[in-house]
Amino acid sequence: MIPTFSRLKPLPFLPRTIKQLLQTSFPPAVQPTRPTGDQPSSVLSTSPSPILASASTPLSAQSDTTTVHGWVSNIQVKKHVAFLKIRDGTSDEALQVVVSGKKDDLSSGGDLRRTVESLTRGSSVKIQGELIPSPGAGQPVELQAKILTVLGECDSQTYLIEPSVVPSSTKDRSRPVKTTNRPTVHLRELAHLRMRERENAAVVRVRDRVAREWRSFLEVGGGEIFRVTAPSLNETVRTDKPPEAFFPEPPGASLTVSAQLHLETYLPVCPRAYTLSTSFRAEPSRSSRHLAEFTMLEVELAFVNRVDELMDFTEQGVKSVLRGLSRGLSLGDGQTEEMAKKIEKEEDPDAGAGIGVFWAKPGTTEKIRSAIEKPFGRLSYTEAIELLKRAHAEIPFELEPVDGQTLQTEHEQWLASREGGPVFVYDYPASFKAFYMLPNEDNKAGTVACFDLLVPGVGELAGGSLREHRLDPLLDVMRQRNMSTEPLEWYLDQRRYGSVPHGGFGLGFDRMVSWVTGVSNLKDIVGFPRFKGGCVC
Amino acid sequence: MIPTFSRLKPLPFLPRTIKQLLQTSFPPAVQPTRPTGDQPSSVLSTSPSPILASASTPLSAQSDTTTVHGWVSNIQVKKHVAFLKIRDGTSDEALQVVVSGKKDDLSSGGDLRRTVESLTRGSSVKIQGELIPSPGAGQPVELQAKILTVLGECDSQTYLIEPSVVPSSTKDRSRPVKTTNRPTVHLRELAHLRMRERENAAVVRVRDRVAREWRSFLEVGGGEIFRVTAPSLNETVRTDKPPEAFFPEPPGASLTVSAQLHLETYLPVCPRAYTLSTSFRAEPSRSSRHLAEFTMLEVELAFVNRVDELMDFTEQGVKSVLRGLSRGLSLGDGQTEEMAKKIEKEEDPDAGAGIGVFWAKPGTTEKIRSAIEKPFGRLSYTEAIELLKRAHAEIPFELEPVDGQTLQTEHEQWLASREGGPVFVYDYPASFKAFYMLPNEDNKAGTVACFDLLVPGVGELAGGSLREHRLDPLLDVMRQRNMSTEPLEWYLDQRRYGSVPHGGFGLGFDRMVSWVTGVSNLKDIVGFPRFKGGCVC
Repeated sequence: MIPTFSRLKPLPFLPRTIKQLLQTSFPPAVQPTRPTGDQPSSVLSTSPSPILASASTPLSAQSDTTTVHGWVSNIQVKKHVAFLKIRDGTSDEALQVVVSGKKDDLSSGGDLRRTVESLTRGSSVKIQGELIPSPGAGQPVELQAKILTVLGECDSQTYLIEPSVVPSSTKDRSRPVKTTNRPTVHLRELAHLRMRERENAAVVRVRDRVAREWRSFLEVGGGEIFRVTAPSLNETVRTDKPPEAFFPEPPGASLTVSAQLHLETYLPVCPRAYTLSTSFRAEPSRSSRHLAEFTMLEVELAFVNRVDELMDFTEQGVKSVLRGLSRGLSLGDGQTEEMAKKIEKEEDPDAGAGIGVFWAKPGTTEKIRSAIEKPFGRLSYTEAIELLKRAHAEIPFELEPVDGQTLQTEHEQWLASREGGPVFVYDYPASFKAFYMLPNEDNKAGTVACFDLLVPGVGELAGGSLREHRLDPLLDVMRQRNMSTEPLEWYLDQRRYGSVPHGGFGLGFDRMVSWVTGVSNLKDIVGFPRFKGGCVC
Repeated sequence: MIPTFSRLKPLPFLPRTIKQLLQTSFPPAVQPTRPTGDQPSSVLSTSPSPILASASTPLSAQSDTTTVHGWVSNIQVKKHVAFLKIRDGTSDEALQVVVSGKKDDLSSGGDLRRTVESLTRGSSVKIQGELIPSPGAGQPVELQAKILTVLGECDSQTYLIEPSVVPSSTKDRSRPVKTTNRPTVHLRELAHLRMRERENAAVVRVRDRVAREWRSFLEVGGGEIFRVTAPSLNETVRTDKPPEAFFPEPPGASLTVSAQLHLETYLPVCPRAYTLSTSFRAEPSRSSRHLAEFTMLEVELAFVNRVDELMDFTEQGVKSVLRGLSRGLSLGDGQTEEMAKKIEKEEDPDAGAGIGVFWAKPGTTEKIRSAIEKPFGRLSYTEAIELLKRAHAEIPFELEPVDGQTLQTEHEQWLASREGGPVFVYDYPASFKAFYMLPNEDNKAGTVACFDLLVPGVGELAGGSLREHRLDPLLDVMRQRNMSTEPLEWYLDQRRYGSVPHGGFGLGFDRMVSWVTGVSNLKDIVGFPRFKGGCVC
C-alpha cells in the first residue's frame, strides 16, 4: 500500500517579491471610538482579529521588519526626506521607499542619508524597514527604510543618460544611451540595459503569459492535447528549399524548419499532440517579420476530416489565449489601463514594467476585444484574389495579385486590415503549397485543404492543412515534384501502417506576441534575436 | 468600459477519445422492483435522473450511437463473435469492441464480419456502435459494433511479427520485427512502429507529465517563476570547450550548450526565471547517458546567497514533480499498478499504453516514494572523495578517485546507490568547474559554491552554483584561465550595472524522465535521438 504524499512546505528562503509586498493588506484604520446607540460597544471584543481589537496600538508597532530586494528606478531627494522607487520585475508598479533624514527617527540615520545621496538609478539594493499603508496617494503601501545596503553599484554615466546622445555603435561602450526614446536597435546589443527597458520587460512577461494560455487551451480546453518533444536537428528537408549546413556529423543533417513531419509520427500514441519549440530558417533578408531562430507552436490532430474543423480549432485557440490574457490584465475594470497610463507619464523608463503597458497603447484593447468577440473572417483563396484584384485596380499594390500565385506580404496585410481583424484564407492552389497537403476534390480540384490565418499588422500568423494520409497519392505528388522518397521513407511508412486522416497547423509564437503587444519588429519580441549577420550577445 | 468575456464553447468537432469513452458512467442496473416496508415506493419518482426512473426502458435503448477512432491492437475471432481491442493512445487501457456474427443483430452484419476477418493489428479504424456496460470482467464498458470502417490498412507481414525474427538492419524493411522483446535499438529507426511500442508510448506521456509538473512547481509553488526564451544559436563559448561550427552567418556562431549566461540577463525583469529548452552538445561518444540534442531545465534566481538555498530549491522541485506524477497515477490506491500488471500480462504490445506501465516494474514505486519522503543526502566534495577512497580500497573502481579531480561516472553512480536515492555533492574544487562559479571563502578556499545532484542509475541529474556577481573577481578568474573577455563583454556588463547575488541550476530533463521510468538509455527517452552519427529519421 502506497501512502498519499503530503504537500511540501513553502519555500522559506526565497525573499518576498515587490509584487507580494504591494499586495499586503492592512487592517482598515480604526476610527476613534465614539459610542453610539446604534452600535453596541461590545463589537470590538467580538472582532475576529486581535489587532483590530486593540485600537490603541499604533499600526507601525504591529509590523515586523520587511526586507526588499530590487533595482532603484527613481530617486527624489528633498530636504528632510528621500523617495526611492524600487522595482524587481515582479510587478507593474514600483515600491515606494521613504528615507527620512531626521536622525532621531532612524537607527543609523546619518549613514542611511549619505548612502541615498550617492545612489544611482539602476543600482541594486537590499532595504530593511517597516512596511506601512502609504499616507500619500498613488501607492497602497510604502517602506520606511531603516537599513539600506547597495548590492551592486551602477555607473550612471554610461547607464542611462542625456537624451540627445545615442551611440552610433555599441563598440563605443563609454558613450551614453538614452532609453526613453526606445532606441531599440542599439538596445538589442546591450544585454544589461535591454531587459530593463519598459517595453522589452513587458514583452518578456507577455511571452510567458501567451505560452501559459496556449498550454492551458491545449492541455485542458482543447481536449487533453499532449506536448511532445520535436527534434531540432533534422535530416529531412521539409520543403524544396535547401537545408542549412549544420553538424559535421552526420553529414547532411540540418536544423529543422518545422517539427510537423515528426509530430505526425506521434499520433498513434498522442492523437492530439503539440510542440512549442525552436525552429530555424536561413532567412536571407533582415526583415522585421523574420528571424533565423524563432518559436513555433505546432499542433497535429488525428481524425480530422475537414479544413473547417482545423480553422475552428485555431480560432478557438487564439481566442482562448486572448481571453486569458485580458482576464489576467483586469481588462474588465480598466484598472490596468489606468496603471499603464500612470507608468507612461511617470518618465520612469527602466526596470520591471509589466504587461499592462501595452494596454495603454491606442487601439490595443479594442483590437483584443474585437478579435475575441467577432468571428474570424473566412475567404477562399479565389475570393481573396478577386478582392485583391479589385483593390489593385484602385490603389495599386507594389506587386500585382495574380490568380494561381502566392500572396505577397502587402496582399496579406491588406486582406487583414480590410477585415479589421484576423481572417482565414483557405484552399490555396496546390502548386505553391507543400507536397504533403491533402488535395481538394470535385469543384475545387487543383487546390489543397489548407489555410493561412492573417492578422493586421503582422500578416501570416498561422498556417495549417489536412495532410495527405494515403500512400499512393502522396507518392504521385512526390514524383511530380521530383522529390527523392529515400530520406522520407520513415514518413511514408506512416501511410503504410494504419494511416488516419489528420491535420494540423503551425503558429508563429513570436508573431502572436508581436500582434498582441503591437511591438512590430520580431527582433524586439525575442530576448536574443538571431538573423543574418546578427548574433551579437 | 471593457466587458468581461464569456467562456468559449467546447470543441464539438473533436471526436471523443477512448479515455473519455472508458470514463462513461452508466446508471446502476435497477433491480426488479420488490416493494418493501422499509423503502417508500415513491422513491423512483423523486429520482433526479429521468433515465433512472424508467426501469422498464432497456439500457441499450437509452444510448446513442457512439463513434470510436483508433488502432486495432488485438483481434480474437470466435465462432459467433469477435473481440477487438482498440487503442488511441489516450488511455492506458484499450476499448473492447464486440462484433457479433449473428446476421439479425446487425444492420450490415455480413459485411461487418467479413471486414473483421480481414483486419490486421495496427490498422486504423472507425467504429460506430452502442456503448454499454461490459458484461464481462476486465473492462467497464464495451462497444457493440454496428459499422466498422478501415481507415488505414496495415501490412501484418512487415508490421508486427514472429518472435524469433529480428532484422539485423533497418535497411531491410521487408524483414519482420518483433516488439515484445523490445528490440529498442531497431525500433529507434522505425518511426512508424516506435511510438506504438508500449514503453516508448509511455515515455511520451511521462515526458509531458514531468514537464507539466515542473511548470506547476515553478510557476506556482516555486514562487511565480517566469519562463523566458533562451537562444539556441549562440556566439559565446560557455566553457573552455571549442564550439561547434554552425551557421555560415554570422561566422563563429554555434549551437548553445547552455542558456545560463543569457538567462542571467533576464534577472532585473524576472528575478526568478527558467527555461526548458533544447541544448546541444557535440558529445563524441555514443554513451547511453548523452545525446547531441537534449532538453534542459535551467532556473536562475536573484538574491540567493547560499548554495544550501539552491539545494533546498532543487530538492523541493524534484519532490514536487515526483509527488505530482504519483498523484496522477493513483499511486495511493494501487489501482494503476494492477492495471499496469494486467497490460504486462496481456501480451498486447503495441499502441497507446500509458505511464502506469512503469509503476509495475520492480522497485519503481519504492524508488519514487523514498525519494519523496527521505531528505536528499548532502555530502561535501571532500566527504565524497573520502568515501570513494575508502570504497576503492575494498572494491576497486576502474578509475581511482583522486582528491582535487573530477568525479567519474562510476563514482557518481556509487555515491547515489550508497545513498539509496538522490544525493547532493557540493563545494567542488574550483579548478575543474566553470569560470563563473562563486568561490567559497575562509576554510573552504579553493572550492566553489556549487552542487551536483546525483541519482541512482543515472548519475548526474542536475548541477547548480552561485554565480560570481562581482566584476573584478570575475575578471581575475578569466585572466587566470586565459579567457578572452571580448566575446563576454555583455555578460560582464551585468556586473557593471546593478549586479546582485544570484544562482541557479540546470537539470537534465531527459535524464529525469529516464530516472523516473527506469528506461536507462536516453535514446529511448526522446522521440528522435540525435547523437554522433545518429540522425536517421
